[in-house]
Amino acid sequence: MSNTKALPLLAPEVSEVSEAAAPCCPPLTERPFTAEEAETAARMFKALGDPVRLRLFSAVASHEGGEACVCDISDVGVSQPTVSHHLKKLKEAGLLTSERRGTWVYYRVEPSVLAAMGKLLTSTSTAS
Amino acid sequence: MSNTKALPLLAPEVSEVSEAAAPCCPPLTERPFTAEEAETAARMFKALGDPVRLRLFSAVASHEGGEACVCDISDVGVSQPTVSHHLKKLKEAGLLTSERRGTWVYYRVEPSVLAAMGKLLTSTSTAS
Repeated sequence: MSNTKALPLLAPEVSEVSEAAAPCCPPLTERPFTAEEAETAARMFKALGDPVRLRLFSAVASHEGGEACVCDISDVGVSQPTVSHHLKKLKEAGLLTSERRGTWVYYRVEPSVLAAMGKLLTSTSTAS
Repeated sequence: MSNTKALPLLAPEVSEVSEAAAPCCPPLTERPFTAEEAETAARMFKALGDPVRLRLFSAVASHEGGEACVCDISDVGVSQPTVSHHLKKLKEAGLLTSERRGTWVYYRVEPSVLAAMGKLLTSTSTAS
């Protein structure tokens, strides 16, 4: 199984978004989103819109080496199948990639997507 | 009606988060979120996890002067009551504040909350 996949917010092969804006969407404060942009971005926000999923995502994101397997992050008080279910959802939203190594599937945060979401929330002006 | 209210991510009276981290939550990559932090942050992500809501939010955020009334942002293809419903949800999540002036209620993006959410998505390291 490959851990590279087309990410909704980014063109394939783009490994990092630093200063560049995300190809998907401008900052929310720049101009009204189109329906298509909103669809893409809302999918990612929705994936983080669940407390358990957000805790798991944070657990993976902050884990040593930037990756974790289910075995590493089982302390959020839900069963391992539930953990796996939520990790799958995060993967489907393009927020995590996964790679099987031996017994375990390892999950890794897609830093470029995280950066792109961060950009999206960055004000172009203070709007105040 | 006052347009100041306690915001989940921020202490009252804090008008701007610039370099300071959000009091609610550290960056997702810093350490695993606690259950309480995840509850707070997930509520805000969830509010942006709907395409129509995201378009409306973007329409308000990018509107001249950083504020808009329902009359300004009725072009997303849903009825005005639906628009009002979504704006209410965004307000409940602490992402918008509102103020009635004459006939209309004006909505304004809470830039500090937007900045705090952006911070939350900012990597402390590249995690790669």
